[in-house]
Amino acid sequence: MQHFSDRLATAIRARRSVVCVGLDPALERMPPALVEKYRPQAAELGDEAAVAACFQEFCGGVIDAVAAFAACVKPQAACFEQYGAAGWRALGEVIRCAHEYELPVILDVKRGDIAATGAAYGRAAFGGAPGFAAPVAGLAADALTVSPYLGDDSLEPFVAQCADGRGVFVLTRTSNPGAALLQERKADGRPLFVHVAELVARLGAGHIGDAGYSDVGAVAGATSPGALRLVREVLPHAFLLVPGYGAQGAGADALAGVAAGDAAGFVVNASRSIIYAWQTGVAEYRRAAAAAAESMRNDLAFAL
Amino acid sequence: MQHFSDRLATAIRARRSVVCVGLDPALERMPPALVEKYRPQAAELGDEAAVAACFQEFCGGVIDAVAAFAACVKPQAACFEQYGAAGWRALGEVIRCAHEYELPVILDVKRGDIAATGAAYGRAAFGGAPGFAAPVAGLAADALTVSPYLGDDSLEPFVAQCADGRGVFVLTRTSNPGAALLQERKADGRPLFVHVAELVARLGAGHIGDAGYSDVGAVAGATSPGALRLVREVLPHAFLLVPGYGAQGAGADALAGVAAGDAAGFVVNASRSIIYAWQTGVAEYRRAAAAAAESMRNDLAFAL
Repeated sequence: MQHFSDRLATAIRARRSVVCVGLDPALERMPPALVEKYRPQAAELGDEAAVAACFQEFCGGVIDAVAAFAACVKPQAACFEQYGAAGWRALGEVIRCAHEYELPVILDVKRGDIAATGAAYGRAAFGGAPGFAAPVAGLAADALTVSPYLGDDSLEPFVAQCADGRGVFVLTRTSNPGAALLQERKADGRPLFVHVAELVARLGAGHIGDAGYSDVGAVAGATSPGALRLVREVLPHAFLLVPGYGAQGAGADALAGVAAGDAAGFVVNASRSIIYAWQTGVAEYRRAAAAAAESMRNDLAFAL
Repeated sequence: MQHFSDRLATAIRARRSVVCVGLDPALERMPPALVEKYRPQAAELGDEAAVAACFQEFCGGVIDAVAAFAACVKPQAACFEQYGAAGWRALGEVIRCAHEYELPVILDVKRGDIAATGAAYGRAAFGGAPGFAAPVAGLAADALTVSPYLGDDSLEPFVAQCADGRGVFVLTRTSNPGAALLQERKADGRPLFVHVAELVARLGAGHIGDAGYSDVGAVAGATSPGALRLVREVLPHAFLLVPGYGAQGAGADALAGVAAGDAAGFVVNASRSIIYAWQTGVAEYRRAAAAAAESMRNDLAFAL
């Protein structure tokens, strides 16, 4: 398979967009028409299956609406996992739906474990677990997010799977208020997140595609623009996955100077401000999501 | 519900054991009799369902065999997740089986995320996700492992669920070779893992049960005995989940001085050396697992 980084670069250029739409479905925020449709099924199928089916339709509707304006989508595994096997199946269907629209899928799982366990998490996301007859398909995501706390041997099993056309985004400087507690702590004169970025550079050096980007990227939040620029300095060839835009407070100005290469070298995630745009206006949820994604694409057009 | 820490203390005292049996099923290590039994089902049910059913029987057999000698069990989520919805369902059945034997279940998921997402991961493990008719059951685990890289606001959603009788083990100083890369890095004169231990102390202070232990514990490996003792110094009231014993190389001597309180204050995990003991001898897998668990319990009896 083609390098993940090349497929993402192609998607960015084709849509002229660096928008990553976060798919974080929550029952309390489902549009009333979907709640009415699926509530009666809870008695028949059970709550897990009914909510999972509702999420699947909702995410499918969002994907259809934003496909023209987004470079990729990022399903949030936690939202689906809490509905058990039914949620897991729905997550697989949402990923399949994104692929029908040729949207690369970054699965937000924030996993991290060593050796055989790390490899198993990778296979859960990408496919390839051993079966009696044949390897199993897994979720067939294109990339995933991983947490670096366990060290390099917890990232290597995921990086090894880049050879099969997959991508990895390592949490480096996240966008949440508590991020600074460990990530900004200074060790040997540099914040911890810079050490992590250096590790990402080392792991990603052997996985650079034709577009000049590595398949091993980093998560760096827009809420901390100075840190974001520092991550870019350490990682000139990495794709950055940038959360914190929109509902979390950061604007386009936080991204000044972060672009790299001729496909921007980053994608900016927005979840709530796109998928729940219907709650702040009068539009139906798909029309509201399309308008929000198009507007965000235009706001970030300077990167391309 | 009773405090998780009280339920774990009760299990340790009832079995006179600090053994935590890690349930890390892998297809290439399944006993031949189980492979023969489930291989024909792959054609009929599909590989995912056949492997998941095989894992479920294997783990159920191990649980039955070790129940008299173990304080708790620790299923490894990755092993199941790679078999999709079928794997997730099997994981739930394994947890249910452990509960039939009154064994607390520490779900090894190494999750970590903020706010609503963190809470959703907690509900996936513990139950309580909102449904149309009623909250859903989830996996009904008793405790889970979490990664601290995102900071205090990524641990708080899990700690909040301790109020419902659940427990949390925060990765602090792990047992893998690469652990030192970030965890031993010195910041403000102390290694990063000590800062994490201090965070665990702060988060756990309000969640101490009748047995004197907190529901917020720490993962600290036996492969680094000095670090393990340092973690205990910072966390006199925490349960420690200690990996690295057995197949990973550490012996009982690594645990000298780590006991605290009258229920040891720690559990020592072993996975491969118990569940795959059949591969190193002539015994059937359940008898081999029972013998290995009993022997490990006796080796660690000094802690009680």
